[in-house]
Amino acid sequence: MKSIGVGLIGTGFMGKCHALAWNAVATVFPDVARPRLVHLGEADGELAHRRATELGFARASGDWRKVIADPEVDVVSLTTPNQFHPEMAIAALEAGKHLWCEKPMAPHFAEAEAMRDAARKAGKAAVLGYNYIQSPAIRQIGRLLAEKKVGDLNHMRIEMDEDFMADAETPFGWKHEAASGYGALDDFAVHPLSLIAVLFGRVLRVVCDMAKPYPDRALADGGRRPVETWDIASALMKLENGMSGTLLVNRSAWGRKGRIALQIFGSKGSILFDQERFNEFQLYVTSDEPTEQGYRTVLAGPQHEPYGAFVPAPGHGLGFNDLKVVECRELIRRIEGDRQARTIGFDEGLEIERTVHAMARSHEQGGWVNVR
Amino acid sequence: MKSIGVGLIGTGFMGKCHALAWNAVATVFPDVARPRLVHLGEADGELAHRRATELGFARASGDWRKVIADPEVDVVSLTTPNQFHPEMAIAALEAGKHLWCEKPMAPHFAEAEAMRDAARKAGKAAVLGYNYIQSPAIRQIGRLLAEKKVGDLNHMRIEMDEDFMADAETPFGWKHEAASGYGALDDFAVHPLSLIAVLFGRVLRVVCDMAKPYPDRALADGGRRPVETWDIASALMKLENGMSGTLLVNRSAWGRKGRIALQIFGSKGSILFDQERFNEFQLYVTSDEPTEQGYRTVLAGPQHEPYGAFVPAPGHGLGFNDLKVVECRELIRRIEGDRQARTIGFDEGLEIERTVHAMARSHEQGGWVNVR
Amino acid sequence: MKSIGVGLIGTGFMGKCHALAWNAVATVFPDVARPRLVHLGEADGELAHRRATELGFARASGDWRKVIADPEVDVVSLTTPNQFHPEMAIAALEAGKHLWCEKPMAPHFAEAEAMRDAARKAGKAAVLGYNYIQSPAIRQIGRLLAEKKVGDLNHMRIEMDEDFMADAETPFGWKHEAASGYGALDDFAVHPLSLIAVLFGRVLRVVCDMAKPYPDRALADGGRRPVETWDIASALMKLENGMSGTLLVNRSAWGRKGRIALQIFGSKGSILFDQERFNEFQLYVTSDEPTEQGYRTVLAGPQHEPYGAFVPAPGHGLGFNDLKVVECRELIRRIEGDRQARTIGFDEGLEIERTVHAMARSHEQGGWVNVR
Amino acid sequence: MKSIGVGLIGTGFMGKCHALAWNAVATVFPDVARPRLVHLGEADGELAHRRATELGFARASGDWRKVIADPEVDVVSLTTPNQFHPEMAIAALEAGKHLWCEKPMAPHFAEAEAMRDAARKAGKAAVLGYNYIQSPAIRQIGRLLAEKKVGDLNHMRIEMDEDFMADAETPFGWKHEAASGYGALDDFAVHPLSLIAVLFGRVLRVVCDMAKPYPDRALADGGRRPVETWDIASALMKLENGMSGTLLVNRSAWGRKGRIALQIFGSKGSILFDQERFNEFQLYVTSDEPTEQGYRTVLAGPQHEPYGAFVPAPGHGLGFNDLKVVECRELIRRIEGDRQARTIGFDEGLEIERTVHAMARSHEQGGWVNVR
Repeated sequence: MKSIGVGLIGTGFMGKCHALAWNAVATVFPDVARPRLVHLGEADGELAHRRATELGFARASGDWRKVIADPEVDVVSLTTPNQFHPEMAIAALEAGKHLWCEKPMAPHFAEAEAMRDAARKAGKAAVLGYNYIQSPAIRQIGRLLAEKKVGDLNHMRIEMDEDFMADAETPFGWKHEAASGYGALDDFAVHPLSLIAVLFGRVLRVVCDMAKPYPDRALADGGRRPVETWDIASALMKLENGMSGTLLVNRSAWGRKGRIALQIFGSKGSILFDQERFNEFQLYVTSDEPTEQGYRTVLAGPQHEPYGAFVPAPGHGLGFNDLKVVECRELIRRIEGDRQARTIGFDEGLEIERTVHAMARSHEQGGWVNVR
Repeated sequence: MKSIGVGLIGTGFMGKCHALAWNAVATVFPDVARPRLVHLGEADGELAHRRATELGFARASGDWRKVIADPEVDVVSLTTPNQFHPEMAIAALEAGKHLWCEKPMAPHFAEAEAMRDAARKAGKAAVLGYNYIQSPAIRQIGRLLAEKKVGDLNHMRIEMDEDFMADAETPFGWKHEAASGYGALDDFAVHPLSLIAVLFGRVLRVVCDMAKPYPDRALADGGRRPVETWDIASALMKLENGMSGTLLVNRSAWGRKGRIALQIFGSKGSILFDQERFNEFQLYVTSDEPTEQGYRTVLAGPQHEPYGAFVPAPGHGLGFNDLKVVECRELIRRIEGDRQARTIGFDEGLEIERTVHAMARSHEQGGWVNVR
Repeated sequence: MKSIGVGLIGTGFMGKCHALAWNAVATVFPDVARPRLVHLGEADGELAHRRATELGFARASGDWRKVIADPEVDVVSLTTPNQFHPEMAIAALEAGKHLWCEKPMAPHFAEAEAMRDAARKAGKAAVLGYNYIQSPAIRQIGRLLAEKKVGDLNHMRIEMDEDFMADAETPFGWKHEAASGYGALDDFAVHPLSLIAVLFGRVLRVVCDMAKPYPDRALADGGRRPVETWDIASALMKLENGMSGTLLVNRSAWGRKGRIALQIFGSKGSILFDQERFNEFQLYVTSDEPTEQGYRTVLAGPQHEPYGAFVPAPGHGLGFNDLKVVECRELIRRIEGDRQARTIGFDEGLEIERTVHAMARSHEQGGWVNVR
Repeated sequence: MKSIGVGLIGTGFMGKCHALAWNAVATVFPDVARPRLVHLGEADGELAHRRATELGFARASGDWRKVIADPEVDVVSLTTPNQFHPEMAIAALEAGKHLWCEKPMAPHFAEAEAMRDAARKAGKAAVLGYNYIQSPAIRQIGRLLAEKKVGDLNHMRIEMDEDFMADAETPFGWKHEAASGYGALDDFAVHPLSLIAVLFGRVLRVVCDMAKPYPDRALADGGRRPVETWDIASALMKLENGMSGTLLVNRSAWGRKGRIALQIFGSKGSILFDQERFNEFQLYVTSDEPTEQGYRTVLAGPQHEPYGAFVPAPGHGLGFNDLKVVECRELIRRIEGDRQARTIGFDEGLEIERTVHAMARSHEQGGWVNVR
């Protein structure tokens, strides 16, 4: 394919991560043409130019609309805070650009729906940044499930925990305001839901409970303000495929740094995974001799696609940023029209958001709710 | 104190375990007088005599009432199937015997209440076999919580999983009949609830969902019969102390053998524990240097009471049966009137059963229920 | 068989452990007659009587010769400090008693040889307390090796580490005197060597280096005295079966509590084990699918003999003291003339001591030495 | 600084890894100018051009001398097989280029010495590819040792194991010929020695034993040929700083994929590390409460430099290729004259090779040898 022109809007955690991915993708994957880093947008021109130098972009603007308007830009990486996603995403799609948008789609479901509609109308690739689905271990788990290696699935549990909100002394910030969303549901639950989507399918019903460890937090001026978001959310769920399961998230979980712990139970075995050690997974199968049955700790290696594109030796390990490189490659495949590309587009993404809003609704109403 | 005369009714898994405990308790704990193994009861006289020889009891009867009537018997170990507990327990208490009764109390709440009433009336020690509360690690965790080592608690998760029901080929048996109870709720949930009771206190509200991986199982005669019990139960809960939490149990969880996994989150740290490796626990505290914070894997040793009564060297490990020895010692302390003894009596046990029935009710009704 | 009369000499760590084993063995193993705890010997009569009450022995003496002379004593448990082993062991054997002697045999090789000669002459069971060979996991590993599950063996590594000598502030004691032996070689190396003996066979050649972290230690009177023993010993070795290997021990290894870490490499897989988690082992086999190869963590269960005699449910765990119960049962089998009993007798024990002395000689001479 | 022009010779495992590093370094580290990928050399021109396109280099040559002669090339990445290092490295240095040379330096010590001399004479940066010293965890361990967090060091053990030679059916190849070097000593031992160099300093004396699991291997024509190299090497050692230690390597260790296991013992604690999980390390300190002492599993995060340059969130994990990006950044700092740069230059590298040759000499001679 011809080289792709890249525009990047936003240069925080995910902005740098996207830049690294665009930079590396063609070197890692021999079948991908080298993208051109064309135009970077930031909140003001000075910052934009500094970042463009750092991240290797040719041009910079203090106005994101110029990035979208740039005729050399074929695809826009959108990494701004969630609240800006709808306007920017829709504008990019309407301008005929492909779109790589960080998750979640938008604070409000109606906005996410409008984004989905714009993507459908534009007919362009519109891919969300659910990078955890891209690891060699999760892909291998997906293959094992498809092969029924652990038999017919009947139950799953998934947890996502970090501790960036765990400190009671952290002052009140924008993530404690209701305007930022529900809290851990938006920050975290969407990630496990992306894994549920690729591994198991749709969620039908949920009952959810949310909690806040600290009811108020200190203000800069010395007072305290009630916290409006929820750091903890726990849900029971029924899936369309007949499985039952639980989804538990906590962004105030001291000691957890990047945990996404998955337990999958089937009629012939089980599978465990933890994102904190995402270069391995654990497999238990009943076909092993009774005296030798146990969880196998499988270290990712070249036999687990696409590990080998990064390192030819097993057990050497990919990093978090490498997952974004894989995602970028899948995005490019999607842009090229490859239907086998492993991405979460705006249709599937909307389903994830629908489930999140159902969980919040369940908490408010105090009982089971249908996702649809 | 004077030597205690012991009667044992039932000689299955727990019967042998009680016998081992009565045998060892005085050798392990120097402050305990050596119990006399007086009278063993089994379903028929021949079996009773064989078991009495094997387990070291002086007398044997094919009628459990003779054990209870034996004037040399001071305390009765009751290890028969749950459905026999009410009649036997009440008879023993009415005969003025102390009672060590395996968990859970009874299939029906009214029966458990009657047992509780009998215990109150008799004024004798009536202790339930919740041995998991006795391990050095769980006791140390209790001390850490009391010292607020991890700050104010805000959330907990507890799971209990084994795989003895995981094989779809296992034929229909009595544990699949509704008469045996709810399923995993009786078999498993009571154990985590005993830990919740000693570590956190009472449960106020629950919402619970149950599932059965295999809707029917093979009968001996070649047909199939619907399974009436539930192997999986998942619950969200609110505790009296303000914590929220989850309790997840599964007796069809391939690969899990004796898992009771506990996660405790507080404002200053967190604690992890897994019964499959019950000689250790994990502690994370925010008072460690930021560059050196991490879960400490603490191996049980003599500094964790009562490990040292078994082995003076750390890291050598206690076994499952040792927990029952500790429980037996606490029972003897209770018999001697020691109010500091760490036991779960019939009052606390009834509270556990109340919660189990509330969980079942929640599943039936499809929403949150109050435990009381 | 008829009941065995037991005499116990010494009531420290191992003395209590033997008493617990004699107490429990017949209850755990249905095929063993209940031993009678006849006569306990300690350094003085008052202590002896106190301990006899605590440990459940019928008689007590302040003179160990009376224990040996007691006609009701069939077997003597010898758990005194190593230096007393030769005189007591030889006297017991000459008195026609069976003998259960704690390891190692004696500080000096000639003494150990004399013990071996006495055992041969007496024709009685003479068994050493190498309990680590008795665990279900180690036995299962032995079976796997015999079945060539990991192919032809080519290399092994074994480490044993604890930290009871790790504190630089611990004052000078008898274990720092040369009279107590070499140090970690006597305390620790004999245990890994017992595992090597049962799993792989004899050691042919060794090169060993010893080290002491603290050259001197404080005396009670305020001065300091040079340490004469070695806390650390490291050796390379060649085995009779063609394997090469390493044996590394350290009793000043902060953080290690009861580690005996074993790595076994063969042409078709490998096996790992650590005594700190001795209810599990790890198995890697090349016959697993390439995408699913990994170390299986196998939890001990009833399928791993003799676990089931203790607990019928897998994953519940044995404790350190349980290993001594197994050893006691094997001793009784040996007394009964069962040649299949799994014990380390004085012949095999002498071979272990021979290797230890060869290691010390290698350190002194600074090069490889032959064991024989 | 001004932009650096890069030449790359060799495009295998390490060649691609260098290319990725040159590509990413300026995006990851804001203080580094973006390198220009100028000229790629491969064995023939066609391959060179293909690789140049894949890896993003502007020019390509089938003759490595043209890369070195290219005036736009400031630094040469040398990733060809070891035997070519001496000629190419010396030519590059003589041409006034900086040099990034993969480890080890050369098969023969005299060649390595000549390379070291050339580097000294040229006065250019000459850095070896010892990337394992660059991980945030190893750097943090270095800081902890410098702060005496675990007290005075007295002992260390280090192991490096993989299984790429473990299959007995792998046919005879160039790595089985003596011309390729000693075997595991060259492939592996140099890596642990690089860690010893940065963490502890120089090795004084060694005794080493080598072994080969498979004495011969199949030839393509059907016969078998004796294996001339050694897959296993085990050594005891004395360090200049007074520590004793062991270095054990095995490239036929089934189940091991990228293990570099380090154990460090001091008077106040200990540290563990394993490269298979290089985003974490374990720390045991005696300053923790006795009831709470245990190995802390510390997950790498932004507090462990230079993790934060890659990901601002802890516990998300770096990958193997990221270590090479760090190394590349340190190389650039070295080129810029920064004496604080963390690199292993040709002087330190020669010391590592000297130790390797001493180990081989010890094996041949059968005893202890001095490194110098």
